[in-house]
Amino acid sequence: MRLAAIAERLGLGFEGADLDVTGMNTLTEASPSELSFLSDRKHLNDLKTTRAGAVLVGGEFAAEVPESTRALVCGNVPLTMAAATALFAPPPMDADAPAPVTGEGSFVDPRAHVENGAVIGRNATVMAGAYIGSHAVIGDDTVIFPNVTVYRDCKVGSRCRIHAGTTIGSDGFGYAHTAQGEHVKIWQNGNVVIEDDVEIGSNCSIDRAVFNTTFVRRGTKLDNHTHIGHNCDIGEHCIFVAQVGVGGSTTLGRNCVVSGQTAFTDHLDIAPFTTFTARSGVTKSIQESGKVWSGYPLMEHRLWVKLQAKLAKLVKS
Amino acid sequence: MRLAAIAERLGLGFEGADLDVTGMNTLTEASPSELSFLSDRKHLNDLKTTRAGAVLVGGEFAAEVPESTRALVCGNVPLTMAAATALFAPPPMDADAPAPVTGEGSFVDPRAHVENGAVIGRNATVMAGAYIGSHAVIGDDTVIFPNVTVYRDCKVGSRCRIHAGTTIGSDGFGYAHTAQGEHVKIWQNGNVVIEDDVEIGSNCSIDRAVFNTTFVRRGTKLDNHTHIGHNCDIGEHCIFVAQVGVGGSTTLGRNCVVSGQTAFTDHLDIAPFTTFTARSGVTKSIQESGKVWSGYPLMEHRLWVKLQAKLAKLVKS
Amino acid sequence: MRLAAIAERLGLGFEGADLDVTGMNTLTEASPSELSFLSDRKHLNDLKTTRAGAVLVGGEFAAEVPESTRALVCGNVPLTMAAATALFAPPPMDADAPAPVTGEGSFVDPRAHVENGAVIGRNATVMAGAYIGSHAVIGDDTVIFPNVTVYRDCKVGSRCRIHAGTTIGSDGFGYAHTAQGEHVKIWQNGNVVIEDDVEIGSNCSIDRAVFNTTFVRRGTKLDNHTHIGHNCDIGEHCIFVAQVGVGGSTTLGRNCVVSGQTAFTDHLDIAPFTTFTARSGVTKSIQESGKVWSGYPLMEHRLWVKLQAKLAKLVKS
Repeated sequence: MRLAAIAERLGLGFEGADLDVTGMNTLTEASPSELSFLSDRKHLNDLKTTRAGAVLVGGEFAAEVPESTRALVCGNVPLTMAAATALFAPPPMDADAPAPVTGEGSFVDPRAHVENGAVIGRNATVMAGAYIGSHAVIGDDTVIFPNVTVYRDCKVGSRCRIHAGTTIGSDGFGYAHTAQGEHVKIWQNGNVVIEDDVEIGSNCSIDRAVFNTTFVRRGTKLDNHTHIGHNCDIGEHCIFVAQVGVGGSTTLGRNCVVSGQTAFTDHLDIAPFTTFTARSGVTKSIQESGKVWSGYPLMEHRLWVKLQAKLAKLVKS
Repeated sequence: MRLAAIAERLGLGFEGADLDVTGMNTLTEASPSELSFLSDRKHLNDLKTTRAGAVLVGGEFAAEVPESTRALVCGNVPLTMAAATALFAPPPMDADAPAPVTGEGSFVDPRAHVENGAVIGRNATVMAGAYIGSHAVIGDDTVIFPNVTVYRDCKVGSRCRIHAGTTIGSDGFGYAHTAQGEHVKIWQNGNVVIEDDVEIGSNCSIDRAVFNTTFVRRGTKLDNHTHIGHNCDIGEHCIFVAQVGVGGSTTLGRNCVVSGQTAFTDHLDIAPFTTFTARSGVTKSIQESGKVWSGYPLMEHRLWVKLQAKLAKLVKS
Repeated sequence: MRLAAIAERLGLGFEGADLDVTGMNTLTEASPSELSFLSDRKHLNDLKTTRAGAVLVGGEFAAEVPESTRALVCGNVPLTMAAATALFAPPPMDADAPAPVTGEGSFVDPRAHVENGAVIGRNATVMAGAYIGSHAVIGDDTVIFPNVTVYRDCKVGSRCRIHAGTTIGSDGFGYAHTAQGEHVKIWQNGNVVIEDDVEIGSNCSIDRAVFNTTFVRRGTKLDNHTHIGHNCDIGEHCIFVAQVGVGGSTTLGRNCVVSGQTAFTDHLDIAPFTTFTARSGVTKSIQESGKVWSGYPLMEHRLWVKLQAKLAKLVKS
């Protein structure tokens, strides 16, 4: 889509040469063909070094936009950014894509729903009632159980097992807010990549990224009712017990153990080999690997045990 | 159904003229053609002013029944009421209804399951594997993703997005209990109405009302794994982060923000513009709007912060 | 499968007569035709009295194996046991089984997905998009709502209602771990039995047993988003409010009441007639029946109330 057309749709002006915009992205990840935005002044340093072809920016920061980047000045960046994402949202399916391709030795139940553009590897099983979206990829030897939904553009690796009722690639939860208290959708135009040897239990939800990709890395195992927000990156060989929730853009290192009903807020970084006991409430990043954490607010497990002993004494006093 | 036939089926007598009973309802909401019940003496004042055509009532309260209302005296009102609800329960689908109707510009995937009596608006999308029950209504421009289930008689507004695996209209959780500890189903004969511009994440469950309607009001956004109990009324422009649960008959005002894993018990009234931080446990109604709450038991957020500081000090002592 | 062939596949030797091995099981439950294992020395007494035909055992315990049981000595019992379970894992469906059988008066929607070998009783309803696996059994008068998944070999009793999106028989969550931090699947070769008069809400997950059976007993009612781990035994006439999770092998007696968002760790025994208030965190077994429990760590409800009063005082001080 041409930048001039985008600007017109958004009611904005810009200076500089027109540009073919291939998509949107964050300031740090945008390429010269992508449109970015500064919606929070805390990212001002990222603006100064962005490679984005164009940015949505408030007038007060227009002077900070790098020379090679076109500035689209707007009054309300979050709302304009949300409106811009709608311009890049693909339809739920791509009916015009070529017929799906299935590798040798695979069993795709004729009662499964496989969209055009999907690619299924070798020796895979896709059971009745499962949905495989347009341009989705299912790896070799993977089993997709009944009534699983893999949204368009999402990828599941080899030797995975995705259990019934699980959804891969539903929209991440992102909105801009009007002064009247209405919520304007930020369209979720990224995807999900499930790497090899991952098992996901039943009725889990792995949301697609707003831009780029939500990752569940190689060898990780997720129990039932896990919720993974958009743009998370769940490291290799993690173990999630049931009913865990992870807020958007949170990253876990390899071999984390996350016990049942634990929850993470968004934008955290968790060191590898971290363990969380049941129902931990994680609201801060963890730099040091190998530790055990508990409670909400989160504390080291040994402190949590000590706190519970104190509380037990308190209740007896 | 005639009241005399109902009484016979329930093994009860009654005095007064027979009546065509169109359904059941609470004392405050029942019309003159409906059957109601007094299952808890705390509703005695409602009995005195009810407009119901007939009521199930214990003998000790029969004298309190208004003149225009017929009294059906029974030994165990909750069990009799549960038995009565079964008489009004429609079958899971209405095969005899006319063929479904789809508005102009809509795409209803031939692999979707649309029952007779369903009505789908204009420019809507119903994807493969989705189920649209008898007499269900899907609004204009709405997208129903794969493997969603909309039970019979439920309504989804315009410009909604209902993500994969979500269930709208499953039975509310209600039982009467025998002296032997068995649970007798109270049939859930109401429906769900999702108003316009609502987005619901994946694997959510919105239960149908026991009588009348469970509402999710205009502009509200629910993240994945949300549970909404029967007869709730979730106000306009609310935001629910993932894994929230709401007990039956709880009402939220507009623009409430409910953070992840928060839960509400039943029969609460929450003022508009109320915010709950993550994992709040809400067991009391909130009258004053605009406040921020936390914790379980629930307290104002500033007190919760203070409490956590005290506990941190306690663990160090 | 012959024991000699199993040993060869696992790279193990054994002494004694060969044997036709019908499956795997725990030391206490294995029959003379089954293979068992000692993966934790705390079960050493069970080894001494096992009736298993053969056991996987570390060299240091080989002398404790009963005379009638063959010892297969291995260096890493958990990993070898996991590898052995793979040898007994049936495929996700049994296409060669005879066509499904449906009893008189049942309605099985032609858009439901019923595998060969399934048996559906009388006057049952299986709605569009529901999946009934190979050799699964659905009882008389039971309703299976749309997009439910019943995995192979699982049984649902009579007069049950299984709501949309619920999964019965997905794999339990069990892995052995390599020194490199990889997780090796313990195949879940058991099943699930839902007894008569059970109602299960929407988007629940009832995992199949690793060996034997996960039970939900007669008359129990589970609200939406309930997670039941492998090998649980949920007693008769229990009530589970929404979003409850139960870890593997936990047993509840009859008529327990489990309030919303409560969680149980694995391998607990809960006395009948026990009540848990909302969001209890249960990490220990309960012997005495009829009590009310709260909190995490769990305590008697009256103590929890007292603790909250103390904390309220603390925050005011």
